[in-house]
Amino acid sequence: MSTNNHEAEQALTEQVVASFAGTPDERLRTLMQSLVRHMHAFVREVEPSEAEWMSAIRFLTDTGKMCDDLVRQEFILLSDTLGVSMLVDAINHRLATGATDTTVFGPFYIRGMPERAYGENIAFTPGTPALVHGRVMSTNGEPLANAVLDVWQTAENGMYSGQDTGQPHGNLRGRFRTDAEGRYAITTIVPVSYPIPTDGPVGRMLEATGRHPWRPAHLHFMIDAPGHRTLVTHVFDREDPYLGSDAVFGVKPSLMVDYRERSADHELGRRFGFDGPFREARYDFVLDRS
Amino acid sequence: MSTNNHEAEQALTEQVVASFAGTPDERLRTLMQSLVRHMHAFVREVEPSEAEWMSAIRFLTDTGKMCDDLVRQEFILLSDTLGVSMLVDAINHRLATGATDTTVFGPFYIRGMPERAYGENIAFTPGTPALVHGRVMSTNGEPLANAVLDVWQTAENGMYSGQDTGQPHGNLRGRFRTDAEGRYAITTIVPVSYPIPTDGPVGRMLEATGRHPWRPAHLHFMIDAPGHRTLVTHVFDREDPYLGSDAVFGVKPSLMVDYRERSADHELGRRFGFDGPFREARYDFVLDRS
Ligand SMILES: [Fe+2]
Ligand SMILES: [Fe+2]
Repeated sequence: MSTNNHEAEQALTEQVVASFAGTPDERLRTLMQSLVRHMHAFVREVEPSEAEWMSAIRFLTDTGKMCDDLVRQEFILLSDTLGVSMLVDAINHRLATGATDTTVFGPFYIRGMPERAYGENIAFTPGTPALVHGRVMSTNGEPLANAVLDVWQTAENGMYSGQDTGQPHGNLRGRFRTDAEGRYAITTIVPVSYPIPTDGPVGRMLEATGRHPWRPAHLHFMIDAPGHRTLVTHVFDREDPYLGSDAVFGVKPSLMVDYRERSADHELGRRFGFDGPFREARYDFVLDRS
Repeated sequence: MSTNNHEAEQALTEQVVASFAGTPDERLRTLMQSLVRHMHAFVREVEPSEAEWMSAIRFLTDTGKMCDDLVRQEFILLSDTLGVSMLVDAINHRLATGATDTTVFGPFYIRGMPERAYGENIAFTPGTPALVHGRVMSTNGEPLANAVLDVWQTAENGMYSGQDTGQPHGNLRGRFRTDAEGRYAITTIVPVSYPIPTDGPVGRMLEATGRHPWRPAHLHFMIDAPGHRTLVTHVFDREDPYLGSDAVFGVKPSLMVDYRERSADHELGRRFGFDGPFREARYDFVLDRS
């Protein structure tokens, strides 16, 4: 490349950056100008052929077209599988406050799921019965009554209800409320590892790059309590073989839990009405004050 | 930000880069790893809030959904308006060979348009009559016979046929062939400035950033000749007020032409059958050997 070409290409970047100089909103101006500089730096570094650039255009178009209004959001999957979602998460939760670690929201949340009673069962499809329970507290150690825990996990077939129309409405989803001592209890099944959807552009990207699509087994939580910051996280099964290679880079050591074997006559088994062996996972959440 | 957080965020980037280490295709590995580094650098620089990141996800989703299979390709518009298309173009045409400069392809090309005779009229909608003519040559100065010039321009309403269903099929489009001396001639209308489509996400981005959507008047050319590299370019009207602020950064000084006033009794007017005053634009193209 001659110096002249290099200068002309740099001048183009500056011309594009300058075109955003009149953006009324200062934050938007910063975002757009930084985006242009980084995108141009990427293009200058890899020097895509025109055919490669058209492949990128097609990939992005297909990614948009794969999205529906319910639970399929292929751009979130793309952001997740490129580790960008976890980076945004990390940037937005930098202060070490003693609160529970956060992780990716993921694309499979559905709002407005049924309210569930303390200890109520949310599993209407088969699996290994499990009790997941613990407490929700503030960073000062005070238990948080009336915190709402919105939970979701896949069925044993690796699909979320909504994603898989064969599952009953609200299967393995629901909103639990803590009692006066900040306690919550969920009757469910042990989560399984599952592949993120591979029938779209993100699946093709993973396939082409030799990456597997698996996520280690986890239960999603979004927890709201008055006067506190919403906590979005997962709790992972400590035994899962994919903990070291999560397709979306969401694992943090503090978010693992043991699903311990219990017999039906265990005190908790009698209290929560298990009629056979079950697993017990105990996890406490700590929320930041807002 | 504490050093620990900085290190954790950098470690995340390295973990994502490493996840692509097994990509069988070396070029794809390079592209993905560079993409991850540049995207993460962008995110680290601007530190988007979670709401901002979700806005970006929604913007990309809407951009994909705006695309159709005919002439609306919103991701090309996005690439164009961020100057990335012109940068890719520059990178792929770095050698100064004496060939005609290239510019953006744009999203409005339609393949398979009618073959046109030498001097044939392609304007079936009103406008200022014009003759566009010249020669197609190789870089050694030799005229290129049988070169095919695929041309397209908007009607006076600023819309391309295909984009605007009210226009006759093939309006202001067609494939011309050079004669034995490499000459081409097109009877058409003087092009007008036009706004790129503003009813989608790209239009909203331009609006929000205080940028106008206008492109200076131009005629598109894609020229193929045996043994030569395909030339994709525009010829701009030198009088256009938007030459200095093209919404897609496509203008190069060498690509401007004068549409000169001619009376019906001008020799070319008689030869090409103009029955009133018209404009004459003369432009010669030079193609690289392949
Ligand atoms: Fe999940
Ligand atoms: Fe155009």
